[in-house]
Amino acid sequence: MNFKITASDGRARAGVIETAHGAVETPAFMPVGTQGSVKALELRELVEIGAQIILGNTYHLYLRPGQDVIAEAGGIQGFTGWNGPVLTDSGGYQIYSLSDLRTIEESGVVFRSHLDGSEHVFSPESVIGIQRKLGSDIMMALDECTPFPCDYEYAKRSCELTVRWAARCKEYAEKSGPVHGWHQALFGIIQGSVYRDLREQNIRDITRMEFNGYALGGLAVGEPPETMCTIVEECDALLPASQPRYLMGVGTPENLLDAIGRGMDMFDCVLPTRNARNGMLFTRNGAVNIRNARFKADFTPPDSDCTCYTCRTHTRAYLRHLFVAKEILGFQLATLHNLSFYLWLMREAREAIHSGRYPEWKRTALARMSRMQEFPSEREKQHITTA
Amino acid sequence: MNFKITASDGRARAGVIETAHGAVETPAFMPVGTQGSVKALELRELVEIGAQIILGNTYHLYLRPGQDVIAEAGGIQGFTGWNGPVLTDSGGYQIYSLSDLRTIEESGVVFRSHLDGSEHVFSPESVIGIQRKLGSDIMMALDECTPFPCDYEYAKRSCELTVRWAARCKEYAEKSGPVHGWHQALFGIIQGSVYRDLREQNIRDITRMEFNGYALGGLAVGEPPETMCTIVEECDALLPASQPRYLMGVGTPENLLDAIGRGMDMFDCVLPTRNARNGMLFTRNGAVNIRNARFKADFTPPDSDCTCYTCRTHTRAYLRHLFVAKEILGFQLATLHNLSFYLWLMREAREAIHSGRYPEWKRTALARMSRMQEFPSEREKQHITTA
Repeated sequence: MNFKITASDGRARAGVIETAHGAVETPAFMPVGTQGSVKALELRELVEIGAQIILGNTYHLYLRPGQDVIAEAGGIQGFTGWNGPVLTDSGGYQIYSLSDLRTIEESGVVFRSHLDGSEHVFSPESVIGIQRKLGSDIMMALDECTPFPCDYEYAKRSCELTVRWAARCKEYAEKSGPVHGWHQALFGIIQGSVYRDLREQNIRDITRMEFNGYALGGLAVGEPPETMCTIVEECDALLPASQPRYLMGVGTPENLLDAIGRGMDMFDCVLPTRNARNGMLFTRNGAVNIRNARFKADFTPPDSDCTCYTCRTHTRAYLRHLFVAKEILGFQLATLHNLSFYLWLMREAREAIHSGRYPEWKRTALARMSRMQEFPSEREKQHITTA
Repeated sequence: MNFKITASDGRARAGVIETAHGAVETPAFMPVGTQGSVKALELRELVEIGAQIILGNTYHLYLRPGQDVIAEAGGIQGFTGWNGPVLTDSGGYQIYSLSDLRTIEESGVVFRSHLDGSEHVFSPESVIGIQRKLGSDIMMALDECTPFPCDYEYAKRSCELTVRWAARCKEYAEKSGPVHGWHQALFGIIQGSVYRDLREQNIRDITRMEFNGYALGGLAVGEPPETMCTIVEECDALLPASQPRYLMGVGTPENLLDAIGRGMDMFDCVLPTRNARNGMLFTRNGAVNIRNARFKADFTPPDSDCTCYTCRTHTRAYLRHLFVAKEILGFQLATLHNLSFYLWLMREAREAIHSGRYPEWKRTALARMSRMQEFPSEREKQHITTA
């Protein structure tokens, strides 16, 4: 893996990550393909809207269809038909958020499947082994993702465990080597909850191991947005500039632009896809709940400035009807639009960084979006917070 | 509307129906777009797989989003974005199959919405008025669809009512004229259950009114396949050869080929789309239940001879995984394939008729399909029967 910074504007950077399956321009948003499918979207549509990398969840793919089927198919690419770069997480986050009866031990995590209650163990070595079989271009180290709030003593012990696990992941990755024919990069994950000194210590410990990139974990788990901004800013100053920084699980358009302005390069979030399935569309003029009765006879496109298939082809009235009538096509069209919007936002951000006008562009874009045509419902807010 | 027969082979005919929104080659299969959406399929995909006409359900569209919204949008075409021909049914069948507390009177049908229990009346005049607002290229007269079995006396009285309603539909269609800028054809519907003399009398009474085409109703409602074949054959001999014949609600690939061989030109059925959502794929070598464990590591296309996007892009193993993991994409890909298959089957039938080898082609195609890789489950069989 190779990462080249092509432009910077203040702390914001634009660059290119070269992976075994192609280039990823940063800042990059990675659509989430949890179970080997970006929900409700065809592969050719991902290509059409300009997705350059997708994320797969090791936990889900390990449980279904299983690492061996995917390995036999030639990795995630062979199994799903997606020929571009793939990043896989370590599975840790899903264990903490989905599975029952997890026990965190020095050796790894014992957990029960959320599907059938069967018992499994993830260790630093096993999650690398699985990701080797999945064949992702970027693998993630196993970490413990602390919740918010988290007391200092727990966060400190957890950081130390994350460091020991990172070392074992690194060692096992070097020892095992790829099972498919291509190089797989490995990123380390920085924890430390909201405590500056823990983040600082963790960055020292993790970067010493020389991973190919670094992720900030344990954020977007319920802490106030200002807290997230502060931590991102602090970490930005301490992380090596020459490697990509990935802010995990973030976020709203505003979160993304804030984090890009603070030196972050990569993002993933279920927000655009999950909210699409709830009928919430992101537009250049703010978010709208397409189910709203005021769209009943609104024959304008969902987002007049958007060039995606949905906006070129259909009206708000039609989309509203599809959601009210519970038609699957509504999920498809809304997902296509929301991801188009996110990927457009990243392209615009890259251009703004390249032309040295990132702060002004960001201000204008957010001001326009904050003319939110409709505030998110409580349920949508919750998605934004927990996404 | 203009219908031209371009070739015939025995009783089988191939032709072209010219509508206000373009030509429809027959034999034609019409994908069902119940609520203004062919479930799980984008419009551009309908074009891609060669759909030339889609069917809309007046009952559903009347309840949601309502005739006035669709009229304001410029008809079904303007509302949905589909620029090709559309046929709408009269709403009768859905009243009989979906709604509660229906009362059939001379004036029309009083029924309660299956959505909210609200009371509505459909009369011969009102269903034409609604279809005028929907702007379909082909409208259907209101009929009473008798169930199977149905005693002779009931079927006879019902036929007489259907005749009186057909006359009122015809009269109101002539009086009202189109509300959008284009001509709308009107088809009459033949009833008579399984009774030859009633079908014969009904054909005399209905064809006397000179509709643009004729549908056979009251079939595919549970009668044995041989009975359907016999009735279709009898009606074929009595219907005017110069107008299209539409066999409503049919059917399996075998049903379609049998009916084409007996002079039928148009078909609609939810079978390919509904079964797709249940994981049943039609292939040139028979139907398969893609959920079956034997596909777990089967990395061949769903149908090796099929050129649709699904078969070009994905494997059986991947489709199986999507269905097992309940991913929406599974519905999309299976629907795209099954409808591709149905439209391919119609293209092949047209070619066989044009080259005068329909019976041989049909025999070979069905023999190949009957090497059913897997028999349909009881649930699937039920779908086939009630589709």
